[in-house]
Amino acid sequence: MTIPVGEPMPIIVQKYGGSSVADAAKISAIARKICDRAETGASLVIVVSAMGDSTDRLIEMARDVSGDRPPEARELDTLLSTGELVTSTLMAMAITAAGHPALSLSGQQAGIRTDTRHGSARIADINADRLKRELDRGRICVVAGFQGLADTEDVTTLGRGGSDTTAVALAVALGAERCEIYTDVDGIYTTDPRLVPSARKLAEIGYEDMLEMASLGAKMNPRSIELAAVYDVPVLVASTFEDVPGTLIHGGPHMMEIRRAVTGIAIDRDVAKITVRAVKDRPGVSSQIFAPLSEAGVSVDVIVQNASQEGLTDVTFTVSKSDFERALDLTRETCSDMARDVVGDSGLAKMSIVGTGMQNGTGYAAAMFGALANAGVNIEMITTSEIRITCVIAASAVTVAANALHRAFELDAVVD
Amino acid sequence: MTIPVGEPMPIIVQKYGGSSVADAAKISAIARKICDRAETGASLVIVVSAMGDSTDRLIEMARDVSGDRPPEARELDTLLSTGELVTSTLMAMAITAAGHPALSLSGQQAGIRTDTRHGSARIADINADRLKRELDRGRICVVAGFQGLADTEDVTTLGRGGSDTTAVALAVALGAERCEIYTDVDGIYTTDPRLVPSARKLAEIGYEDMLEMASLGAKMNPRSIELAAVYDVPVLVASTFEDVPGTLIHGGPHMMEIRRAVTGIAIDRDVAKITVRAVKDRPGVSSQIFAPLSEAGVSVDVIVQNASQEGLTDVTFTVSKSDFERALDLTRETCSDMARDVVGDSGLAKMSIVGTGMQNGTGYAAAMFGALANAGVNIEMITTSEIRITCVIAASAVTVAANALHRAFELDAVVD
Repeated sequence: MTIPVGEPMPIIVQKYGGSSVADAAKISAIARKICDRAETGASLVIVVSAMGDSTDRLIEMARDVSGDRPPEARELDTLLSTGELVTSTLMAMAITAAGHPALSLSGQQAGIRTDTRHGSARIADINADRLKRELDRGRICVVAGFQGLADTEDVTTLGRGGSDTTAVALAVALGAERCEIYTDVDGIYTTDPRLVPSARKLAEIGYEDMLEMASLGAKMNPRSIELAAVYDVPVLVASTFEDVPGTLIHGGPHMMEIRRAVTGIAIDRDVAKITVRAVKDRPGVSSQIFAPLSEAGVSVDVIVQNASQEGLTDVTFTVSKSDFERALDLTRETCSDMARDVVGDSGLAKMSIVGTGMQNGTGYAAAMFGALANAGVNIEMITTSEIRITCVIAASAVTVAANALHRAFELDAVVD
Repeated sequence: MTIPVGEPMPIIVQKYGGSSVADAAKISAIARKICDRAETGASLVIVVSAMGDSTDRLIEMARDVSGDRPPEARELDTLLSTGELVTSTLMAMAITAAGHPALSLSGQQAGIRTDTRHGSARIADINADRLKRELDRGRICVVAGFQGLADTEDVTTLGRGGSDTTAVALAVALGAERCEIYTDVDGIYTTDPRLVPSARKLAEIGYEDMLEMASLGAKMNPRSIELAAVYDVPVLVASTFEDVPGTLIHGGPHMMEIRRAVTGIAIDRDVAKITVRAVKDRPGVSSQIFAPLSEAGVSVDVIVQNASQEGLTDVTFTVSKSDFERALDLTRETCSDMARDVVGDSGLAKMSIVGTGMQNGTGYAAAMFGALANAGVNIEMITTSEIRITCVIAASAVTVAANALHRAFELDAVVD
């Protein structure tokens, strides 16, 4: 190492997802790469997820012992947190075996304090004293992702994709140079390359565009992107095992997005639609339909209400496929007296064009609708934000639609 | 429940071992029994081990990532502690599902502080405030056994059979009425019933006798018996799933042991013997033989040295079978210049008669040697304590010897 004494080494936070650490051989391979990186003169904090499908197995056991009722959220959190503890200790052993001193830290030991919302806790504060102390001693710290400690001294988990949030939050707390998310994809693409052969990996993307893409199905936790944006921490998304450039998410001034209005096309196939037909159009009717769904924990996404005809209207909304049957039953119960009938369709997808540049231009919606029409794709619902236009279409039309939009917005052309 | 308001309910600590909680169905079955017990008006603290062979699987993974070197003890402790966390959360869910409010507590949350000897930590202190608070709220507390927290804020484990120690220590800290150890045997027997058909389950046994029996192969952690003896906590050993009376380990005045000199016969088949032949009998020779074994972590048990003849003597000692090959190699290396040769035999067993009553009587040794001689069993080594006489014999003679001793000391006769 050629780092002069006295000059602090840059801190890098790396996160490895579940498929990257699925078995001992993969953990050992990553450990060797981590040691090589440490030799370049960086202080490394490694955040790990649970191995492979171990979280699913723990959830299954929890269901087995809980009978008809859902497992207690407090107990489930401690149970699930063990998955990341297993990976963090094995990774610390593997790094030490590969030649660099390392130690594991639980969320609690890493100083991550959260609120008490079990299953979807938010990070309230990070006391990074111990982390800094261990880094100063020349150790690589391996932090169990996805978890923290509430003021009740109970273990909490951060919800889906929580390890991404752990990584970005630690990068913020440590003033890290950047946060690197290693996963089984090698970056952020203009759209899903399995559907669109000409899809192109982005060298960089802005926080806002990434946030929309992440919310719409790209493999990143939106909360971690928000956090990175607020504190302006650059985030690299790259492949764990392939040595190719990834995508840098940042807020720098020389963003490609300035030159290109539409950054990418997000595809979400987890969409089901429920339509309440011929409901009486009177005040409070929406509340009557949606309050029971909210109480049941069903998350409603797009909502569309047609213009009223003769005092009757149709209300359509989307839910995730896993909530579909339950939401349909609930809505039928709610609406038995106030609507003609309730129908559903679970074979849908959301197709979105995303780009910060769109807020300064016009004609993007028209271009999108035109491209879909030319491709023979029927639009079932439309919703928009400042930097996104989303169409709900039949799931069977996704490949045709994605290729049509990718061409229409010239995403396969090389601009750089 | 008929417990009067204001009168504190008795606290009972129960411990369930790994084979008792090996799968979800077993956990649910135990949870129902625990709820029934709670209805009788007891405050319950449940201590659980890791499920079935999960600890072995974690150790295997640790070895896989650690290469040639042993896994770091600190990391291994956190890794292994997850096994008990999994059981404790699942058990808390199962009890709640069975109808009684419950929560899990890690060793740390249960206030168990230890020294920093990773892998074999000793409990230094228990702060039972949270446990008491949760019990007062009417909850059943399920504590992850085998683990604690050191002053370094690192997780420690208590070594082999550590969950027994957790249970007894919590019983002491809470002033519990008694500690109940549930396992896959239904009590303490006069000897191994698989070898001696007339072996009889003891209704009760004193702490000292139990300590000798436990050290000699009975399925209890000797440290937990010591702790129970010091604080005079009665310990019941009973079957998890069979509803039959177990064995009560206690120090009460009306012990059967007063009437019966020999309480039981302990059998330990994990014995190998190493003999250093014709070693020069000069000062320091024992130290030269045993220091390298101690440094290598080999635990030496019985040591016998013959009377010297012409300045030469034979030194024989026993080790566990797992240490045999290593100890033999080491001793051959050490003694290459100072003895004729080193020979070994791994097919041995220790047969002990145990009984507090023996310290007030005479003739027990003679009776033991006579019984073995009549049965045609050759004695290879002898060692004694105040309340125990141990003979090392060939492993192939164990069944014959055990039956002969059981008859000779009238252990199959019913005295009560």
